[in-house]
Amino acid sequence: MPATDARIAAVDTYDIRFPTSRELDGSDAMNPDPDYSAAYVVLRADEPGEPEGHGFAFTIGRGNDVQVAAIHTLRHHVLGRSVADLCADPGTLYRDLTSDSQLRWLGPEKGVMHMAIGAVVNAVWDLAARRAGRPLWRLLADAEPEWLTAQIDFRYLTDALTPDEALDLLRRGRKGAAERTEHLLTTGYPAYTTSPGWLGYDDAKLARLAAGAVADGFRQIKLKVGADLDDDVRRCRVARAAVGPDVRLALDANQRWDVPEAIRWTNALAGFDPYWIEEPTSPDDVLGHAAVRRAVAPVKVATGEHAHNRVVFKQLLQAGAVDIVQLDAARVGGVNENLAILLLAAKYGVPVCPHAGGVGLCELVQHLAMFDYVALSGTTEDRVVEYVDHLHDHFLDPVVIRAGHYAAPTAPGFSAALRPESIARYTYPGGAFWAADAERTEGRTA
Amino acid sequence: MPATDARIAAVDTYDIRFPTSRELDGSDAMNPDPDYSAAYVVLRADEPGEPEGHGFAFTIGRGNDVQVAAIHTLRHHVLGRSVADLCADPGTLYRDLTSDSQLRWLGPEKGVMHMAIGAVVNAVWDLAARRAGRPLWRLLADAEPEWLTAQIDFRYLTDALTPDEALDLLRRGRKGAAERTEHLLTTGYPAYTTSPGWLGYDDAKLARLAAGAVADGFRQIKLKVGADLDDDVRRCRVARAAVGPDVRLALDANQRWDVPEAIRWTNALAGFDPYWIEEPTSPDDVLGHAAVRRAVAPVKVATGEHAHNRVVFKQLLQAGAVDIVQLDAARVGGVNENLAILLLAAKYGVPVCPHAGGVGLCELVQHLAMFDYVALSGTTEDRVVEYVDHLHDHFLDPVVIRAGHYAAPTAPGFSAALRPESIARYTYPGGAFWAADAERTEGRTA
Repeated sequence: MPATDARIAAVDTYDIRFPTSRELDGSDAMNPDPDYSAAYVVLRADEPGEPEGHGFAFTIGRGNDVQVAAIHTLRHHVLGRSVADLCADPGTLYRDLTSDSQLRWLGPEKGVMHMAIGAVVNAVWDLAARRAGRPLWRLLADAEPEWLTAQIDFRYLTDALTPDEALDLLRRGRKGAAERTEHLLTTGYPAYTTSPGWLGYDDAKLARLAAGAVADGFRQIKLKVGADLDDDVRRCRVARAAVGPDVRLALDANQRWDVPEAIRWTNALAGFDPYWIEEPTSPDDVLGHAAVRRAVAPVKVATGEHAHNRVVFKQLLQAGAVDIVQLDAARVGGVNENLAILLLAAKYGVPVCPHAGGVGLCELVQHLAMFDYVALSGTTEDRVVEYVDHLHDHFLDPVVIRAGHYAAPTAPGFSAALRPESIARYTYPGGAFWAADAERTEGRTA
Repeated sequence: MPATDARIAAVDTYDIRFPTSRELDGSDAMNPDPDYSAAYVVLRADEPGEPEGHGFAFTIGRGNDVQVAAIHTLRHHVLGRSVADLCADPGTLYRDLTSDSQLRWLGPEKGVMHMAIGAVVNAVWDLAARRAGRPLWRLLADAEPEWLTAQIDFRYLTDALTPDEALDLLRRGRKGAAERTEHLLTTGYPAYTTSPGWLGYDDAKLARLAAGAVADGFRQIKLKVGADLDDDVRRCRVARAAVGPDVRLALDANQRWDVPEAIRWTNALAGFDPYWIEEPTSPDDVLGHAAVRRAVAPVKVATGEHAHNRVVFKQLLQAGAVDIVQLDAARVGGVNENLAILLLAAKYGVPVCPHAGGVGLCELVQHLAMFDYVALSGTTEDRVVEYVDHLHDHFLDPVVIRAGHYAAPTAPGFSAALRPESIARYTYPGGAFWAADAERTEGRTA
């Protein structure tokens, strides 16, 4: 990366909300009316030639202002720091942020404050990859194992994963990386699609979208379940008929059930040969997931999008609670913490099938999955990245899906940057869309 | 409670910070310089004769503004609600708050957003007890078991505790309640003190305060540990010499260690006969606590002040990870969720020794412990409430400690109200103290 005396001069935050609830896109058993939103941060240097670093936390509407306020609270850790130093070692900032003792009390390492840390840390990685002129997945895949290991905070992990074990996994992961990079550039990374399966869609739309997904090359689709068992039986029948016996059908309960109910409900749908049941119960319930897993096999148990930090993932693996690790790019403390989670999964031999969707989660997480394939797990077997066809047009470097695969990004960065015109239009409450919306509402009630 | 047509007309929030870091009060291995703070909320009705309801989340400084913003985000759930209905059934509001699907994404049920819910729910209980003209512990202890059971959200709990089991525990708990109430009013509830043991104190101050605590009637003191083992060995020796062999000496590591280190360090201090080791590792690490507990017995394992919701407590009990449940009055979703935690502890037969200190945590949590004694567990054996002599003078109904016991509160409410003059003086950044402080700082740097 180029030498520079540049320092971070601005940590700008934006409350960006998209009015997705009006279309019932994204509706599930726990989230009937999400307005997909981003608490968005841009790091700007004091030299005009330096790129910006973009990052965000994903929320679903109300409270996005609280998330923005949390990011704002971190800015004194970033302002004035050397851009070159930050990019050479994002791990130091990550540890400074998680070690701020006063802010730590608000978590620790969970919820609003931890997602804020993730947004800022990811913005630094976006900046680092832009300065290096490379997509993040390549920056990570080409990095020295020693350097990657140093990016991880092993606190609370050493009973399951030590730095030496991580280093060993990363060194072994590099064998064959060049061939896998070529394969990835040619073929892409397998995706599955959730777009057919939202609860708000009727059966005809479900059948049409499910068949369309298979025609588009997807080998797995996902259905939201958990609101009503009779409905779910019918919808599973419709979906299975539409995709045929050989395409995987994943189910997602979005935390709807208690443990006994999760077992009953999943087993009641077993006849449709579901591949996994996702978020069957509270994301905090490691022992609950383990109990569900024992009772619903061979249906697999998947969770992780709401697992709030590496300690939860550690326990899910220690307890044998999951068949599938669904890390999320913007829920935990950024790339650094996700490196730890990828290594934990590699150590336990459990496949990672990242959560995506929302605002920009597909854009971010593809980089982590591709790094994992090229330089850690070395395989895409039983691995797929979620794909949802929402809101990609708002990004400068949107994901590209071809024949059911994510095309490997080639633009520099973490694919995190929203278009300036989208930021302007959807900033809440003052952006053009929301201002006009408020006027419409006033017009109706006047 | 009196009938009324009153409705909630205001949900006022305050960012209140006390400059405790300047005295090293409250210093421990993870929190070297806390400014004890309250994200404070007052519910006000639209009729002048109605009492106010006060509640708060406790933080340690930076980020208290984020916590206040989170409370502010909840106000649309409270404004305009009937005061009588809220007080007759706080559980409906509690479930509305935890079920707000958009805000739920920011947790779920953890961190900043969940503490905000706790502050609002506790303010409703304060209001309910004031309207009833009774201290909260008596309101709870005299309530019908059916009504108390209906105050609990059993979601994610039914694999460990069902509504029927809860009802049975509460019915059995009532036997002898009248005698225990009398005993409590006469004798109070046992306390232990953390005031001698902060890391920032030198050995002479530690010895003096430890001996003083015993002279004041305390039968247990607590030492902060975890920064340096040699220091801890010396400080344990000083403390044990000061209190003699019969007073319990508890240790608190404030999450400082990984699992292997927690085991080594605790066992290295075992010669001083510590009663419990508190927060030996990450508060999220249920399996880690279980491993530590197996390896350090007969030293007991205690945790809970950072356990973020009832699902974590459920697992700590299911896994046999704790000897002592240290619930906190302001970390989880308020009285309703703490009723669930008390019932889980009762079901598993594990004593509850609540966390306190900070700003007003002693004031709040004494009510929960006293309810537990009078109407649930029925005993104070091996049960003590933490006491720290910080900031009580700022409260209108401060705790009263006599001979190492909390005197049972008699004033109506949840003891949650700060003095108006303290609110005015310590509001950040505009209150008189902080405004003058900013002027002093500017004077020094000019």
